[in-house]
Amino acid sequence: MPFSRAVRAQAPALIKSLKPQYAPTVCKRWKSGPYGYTQAKALVYSKYGDPSEVLSLHTHSISPSLPPNQLLLRTLASPINPADINQIQGVYPSKPPFTSLLGTSVPSAVAGNEACFEVQSIGSSIKSVAKGDWVIMRSTGFGTWRTHALAEEKDILRVEKGGLTEIQAATVGVNPTTAWRMLVDFENLEGGRDWFIQNGANSGVGRAAIQLGREWGLKSINIIRDRKTPEETESMKKELLDLGATKVITESELQSRSTVSEIKEWTSGKNLKLGLNCVGGPVTLALVKTLSPGGHLVTYGAMSKQPLSLPTGLLIFKDLKFSGFWVSRWSDANSAEKEKTVESILQMTREGRFKDIPVQEMRWEWATEGERLVEAVGGGLEGFRSGKGVLVFGDT
Amino acid sequence: MPFSRAVRAQAPALIKSLKPQYAPTVCKRWKSGPYGYTQAKALVYSKYGDPSEVLSLHTHSISPSLPPNQLLLRTLASPINPADINQIQGVYPSKPPFTSLLGTSVPSAVAGNEACFEVQSIGSSIKSVAKGDWVIMRSTGFGTWRTHALAEEKDILRVEKGGLTEIQAATVGVNPTTAWRMLVDFENLEGGRDWFIQNGANSGVGRAAIQLGREWGLKSINIIRDRKTPEETESMKKELLDLGATKVITESELQSRSTVSEIKEWTSGKNLKLGLNCVGGPVTLALVKTLSPGGHLVTYGAMSKQPLSLPTGLLIFKDLKFSGFWVSRWSDANSAEKEKTVESILQMTREGRFKDIPVQEMRWEWATEGERLVEAVGGGLEGFRSGKGVLVFGDT
Repeated sequence: MPFSRAVRAQAPALIKSLKPQYAPTVCKRWKSGPYGYTQAKALVYSKYGDPSEVLSLHTHSISPSLPPNQLLLRTLASPINPADINQIQGVYPSKPPFTSLLGTSVPSAVAGNEACFEVQSIGSSIKSVAKGDWVIMRSTGFGTWRTHALAEEKDILRVEKGGLTEIQAATVGVNPTTAWRMLVDFENLEGGRDWFIQNGANSGVGRAAIQLGREWGLKSINIIRDRKTPEETESMKKELLDLGATKVITESELQSRSTVSEIKEWTSGKNLKLGLNCVGGPVTLALVKTLSPGGHLVTYGAMSKQPLSLPTGLLIFKDLKFSGFWVSRWSDANSAEKEKTVESILQMTREGRFKDIPVQEMRWEWATEGERLVEAVGGGLEGFRSGKGVLVFGDT
Repeated sequence: MPFSRAVRAQAPALIKSLKPQYAPTVCKRWKSGPYGYTQAKALVYSKYGDPSEVLSLHTHSISPSLPPNQLLLRTLASPINPADINQIQGVYPSKPPFTSLLGTSVPSAVAGNEACFEVQSIGSSIKSVAKGDWVIMRSTGFGTWRTHALAEEKDILRVEKGGLTEIQAATVGVNPTTAWRMLVDFENLEGGRDWFIQNGANSGVGRAAIQLGREWGLKSINIIRDRKTPEETESMKKELLDLGATKVITESELQSRSTVSEIKEWTSGKNLKLGLNCVGGPVTLALVKTLSPGGHLVTYGAMSKQPLSLPTGLLIFKDLKFSGFWVSRWSDANSAEKEKTVESILQMTREGRFKDIPVQEMRWEWATEGERLVEAVGGGLEGFRSGKGVLVFGDT
């Protein structure tokens, strides 16, 4: 057995045996440590619950001798999506298996589902990517809140990094992809004629849908929650109009009869074929009622945590259709199509035709304490005030 | 002006001028009256409301000299569907126009939507049907609770009458057609493998779906309301099993955990792709939850008058789809396909492979008083105990 292998075999046990208080120092010392081992950290959980209670920072080491079909990735950026939090809470249907692969004392899973990685080294049989390339995960569920990861070629999508930021690449696979597929896969909308309506219009998906609509000639009616002051409401409206929204209205405006008849006028009573819903509950019924006969409501979120109550006349006589969209399921079933969608969005981004969602960066340096990271991630529960939370990796 | 035309021009005014108490006698006398006029009666309404309050029997005459493109029809049988009652109440979205065409003192509409007619005479340009043929209406909304009607060729579908009863022809266009399209148009079910589940399984649509399923190798789970006694429940179960139902369960059985896991077993957890719903409300949620991932609920009625409440997780994560079916809209948009569907069902009927729904016949003779007819139709509100109500015409 070559020397490096012997060390690799002992290393996890060695790390596990270290007393916790010494671990960070040791890890730091080992970061670009002896025999080429890569020191890595990951936010892991071994049971479901509130992230502040169940998440912890685990340090481990990755051997320099990669199997032929594996890649070593270094994480550049990873967003904090509401679904990531739900997954840790155990209320999300997609549950990564708890394993002992990272040498945790109890079987654990790495949190997070979306990221941009840089290829740090590749196994001997890997041809499609090279050291320094950027990649994202083909599917969700990989575990991305970590400094490094081993992956196989089938797990990744290479991203042409020219003209992109790490954050742009890290956030393309979930929200903009969701918006793209919902606008394309459910109703055959025609540019210059058709409209769509959406709630949560200032969300990541909402902003993406506005911009894709603008590019494709689809007109949009965008519903936002009423802000605390009229000035805040106006400022949010302006922000979305600047992105390309055709109309922006508040939830309370949507309740008024005059707005409902305005919508009918705008859309000629027949060109509002698609609704995108991430809210649910009674406020969504008002949106549903604005849809033209034969229209389709696609639900991709339930921020109100309330069910959707449908008067059956809307189904039978108005011929409305109701479906759901879950980007994880779609990505798993449509791998080639996902690749094309992601590349198209990134190309629009490079050309300045697709703007990022405002983000709040949370730096993850090698020395950043686990407590601080867990706290930052917990912010995802209430939503980040000034935009989507993104972990941005520094000297890790 | 030929003599007959002059009489025709005067006749409506003449009839209108008759004092009501004399009208029946006069009408009776005129039935195959002077100059070949056909005496006709129709159940009409001139405002929306309870059928017992707004329906009345109107007598009028139809000239023997038909325009070239018209046919004179004599009604043989016409069912009383719940939608007919809703239409009279004004709570149905399809509202026939109130007109003065029949010479009513105020503009009125003829009630009823489905019937089998016999062609009594044809205009000179009619080629597709001959005297004595049977026809049904291509679309709903024509007004069928009447002894006679004038129609154009485009309104009708000829029915090959051999081997059929009037009632079979009169009831094919709504319920069996609804069942057929719902089983075919929403999910691609495979005989020998796939299942569907339906509530209101002993309704006209429900019985039709059971039989079509049996013919096509589709297995069915049929939900019925709990009867007053276990014997009545068992008797209804047996009736539906004899028709070809694979399983029959009561609403309360559907609520039990053991039934839910039985259903999963029967359908291998993945072959229950379609649900048919005419009930709505909370009991329908139990049905929805039994659908396999990616399944589809098609709603065609709302007997509970309650909305459908959908936990959004069923849309997003279980990928369930929700649509509605309205046979009137479908028939108007798919005239050729309707013709084929109707002919297929009637052929199965002739071959003894498709049994009628049990009916309760209400005879409409020339002398039957309006009061009695209105009363009979009102029975449609609570549903006919021993089957679907059908007006069967005698010496009219």
